[in-house]
Formats: sequence, C-alpha cells, structure tokens
Amino acid sequence: MTTTRTWRGCVFIGVSLDGFIARTDGELSWLTDPEPRAHPIGAHIATVDPPAPALVWETFYPAIDTLLIGRHTYESVLAFDPWPFDGKAVIVLSSGLVTDDERVVVARSLDEARSILTRTGARRVYIDGGRTIQAFLAAGLVDELTVSIAPVLIGSGRRLFGDLDRDVLLSLRGTHATADDGLVRLTYDVVRPGS
Amino acid sequence: MTTTRTWRGCVFIGVSLDGFIARTDGELSWLTDPEPRAHPIGAHIATVDPPAPALVWETFYPAIDTLLIGRHTYESVLAFDPWPFDGKAVIVLSSGLVTDDERVVVARSLDEARSILTRTGARRVYIDGGRTIQAFLAAGLVDELTVSIAPVLIGSGRRLFGDLDRDVLLSLRGTHATADDGLVRLTYDVVRPGS
Repeated sequence: MTTTRTWRGCVFIGVSLDGFIARTDGELSWLTDPEPRAHPIGAHIATVDPPAPALVWETFYPAIDTLLIGRHTYESVLAFDPWPFDGKAVIVLSSGLVTDDERVVVARSLDEARSILTRTGARRVYIDGGRTIQAFLAAGLVDELTVSIAPVLIGSGRRLFGDLDRDVLLSLRGTHATADDGLVRLTYDVVRPGS
Repeated sequence: MTTTRTWRGCVFIGVSLDGFIARTDGELSWLTDPEPRAHPIGAHIATVDPPAPALVWETFYPAIDTLLIGRHTYESVLAFDPWPFDGKAVIVLSSGLVTDDERVVVARSLDEARSILTRTGARRVYIDGGRTIQAFLAAGLVDELTVSIAPVLIGSGRRLFGDLDRDVLLSLRGTHATADDGLVRLTYDVVRPGS
C-alpha cells in the first residue's frame, strides 16, 4: 500500500505519562519548567556501557533536513526571533493558511505534502505538532518515534496519539533516563507489515 | 486533605505506548502474545551496574498483602483455576456485586474500601483494573506506579489514565527495558504536595 518513499518520517516529542503533549490551552510548563523533585534513579544513569540511548535533541535535530509541521505549530514558531529553522526546509500542512513567508512551503493536504517531500529530495523529515503526527501515523508515514516521557499526570489536554485503522508495531531501538528531570526517552522504529 | 494512611497504594500494569490497557473488547494479545519482532536494544540491557531497575512481577507481587480490584477484574479472575491470589486479602470494589465468595470482601464505595484497608491492617495494596486505578489516582490514594510500556500503538481501547482534578507529580525510581519483548518498565513514586 505504501509506495517506496525516499524519506523517513521522524517524530521527536515530549509527553506526560498519561499521553498529553500540552494542556488544553497549550500550556507546557509541566514539561519545560517542572516543579523540582528528586528522581532517585539519578546515581545509576551514567553507567550503561555500551550505551543504547534513545535519541536526544543534539543527535536528532542535526540529521533532519526537512520539518513538516501543522498550522498551529507554525504560528507558535512565528513568535520566535530569530527563526529557529535556518538551514532546514519547512513545510506547513494547512488547508487554509495564506502566507507570503518565503521560509515555508504550504501543503494543502497530506498527499500534497508527500509530493513536495519527493520533489525536494527530503531524506529525514521531522514531523511535529499533535494533529500532524496523528495524521502521518495513521497514514503509515512515520518510521521513527522518539518520545520523552515526563514524570507527571496532567489528566487532560492535547493527546499525542489518536485513532488508527490498524496497530502500529514498534521495535525498541534505545532508551535512557535523565536524572535531573526524570525524563525517560524511548526511540522506536516502526515495523512495516511484512518487513 | 489526605489523612495519614497505614498502607501504600501500588499499581503494576502493562500499557500500550498510546495508553491502553486492553482493546475495547478486553483483548490483550498485543501485550501477552505480541507479534515477534527484534528489539535492537537487546545487546545492551544487562550491563547497567549498579542497577536501578523498575519493579518486575517477581519483586512486586510477593511484597503485596492486599489486592483491591474492580468487579470486571474480579469476574475475569473467576475464570482462573486455581484461584491466583492465595495468601492475599482481596477486596472487590463494586456497588452492585452480590457474592458468597469467601475469598473476597466487597467494598461498596471507595470510602468503604479505605475503611476496610485500615481495619485489616493492610500495608501494601495492589490496585488493579482500569476504572479502579483511575478512581484511586484521582482520590490521591496511589503511592507507587509501575508501568510496562509495550512497543505498539493500538489506537483505541480501555485507557489506563483518566481525568484528574490536579496534576499528579511523579518521581522516577527505576527503569529498565527487556530485550525479548521490547517492554520498557518505569517505576515512579507519587510526590505528595508539600512532601
């Protein structure tokens, strides 16, 4: 069903243990500025040898050539100065966005996004934003998934994962915890049926 | 708000990466009999020293004196022969269950369950079943949480976590992965406000 793609779809995102990427109003301090607390795993973390770590921002982001984000994520990013994605191609998936921002290309549909990715020779695509991630997962266009699980239950908000027509089987590639914030990072490869 | 308790509420449960403890019809093979696939983290797992592992069944279950389960979980367990909880006190939380099963005590409400736990001198209470776990978490009666994350997205089903009136802050006590099944286990302590 999936035609041969020349690019890998990659997700890299923080999530509460109960599966939210933001509160309902978008608030993120539970992730970015958590209430200080000790994580007693601390003393043990540096001792894994040889390491099988999950990806971290420093190993994930430099290898990305293209970002594919939703309109909501794009509009959040516009508040940043300077523009944080210099040197990367940026595609905004939005049926309605009108912009003369030359730093981005707008794709009106998932199919149009796929065409653009093929045409531009994308290799590693960072898929970001809750609804965008859900749409790409459901369409079988995510190949790699790094999730950083924050040590908190927030009870409600915007979910990372959504409905699927069929199971997505994952293969665990790496995991590690960090002591200061109690984050547990998991990197999975998506297992394709028949692969 | 929480009066001093003489017992710890403990959760130990498997969950898909997208937060489900069972499919909508209760089906569990994605957890108990997963499709074989390699987990390349395998070679690295045994090398953590000193270890900071999460709890596993063999270190969790023997330390439990009491199980507190919902009616649905109780009825599932009745299919087992022999009864799997010999030597443990078992409380079933159910407003409607009528039974002459002498192996269990029925609590009609969360408050009645608390009274029974105090009266029987419970020390470590295994809280099991989706709705029961959600009710105890919301009431601030869970102290320790071990979650085994299965490497699969199933898209829909019975959720582990539900609504909360306030955040539940967690402290990471241990984590480890197992190579054969790609499970990542996480053990957290619940951080009490002001503690």
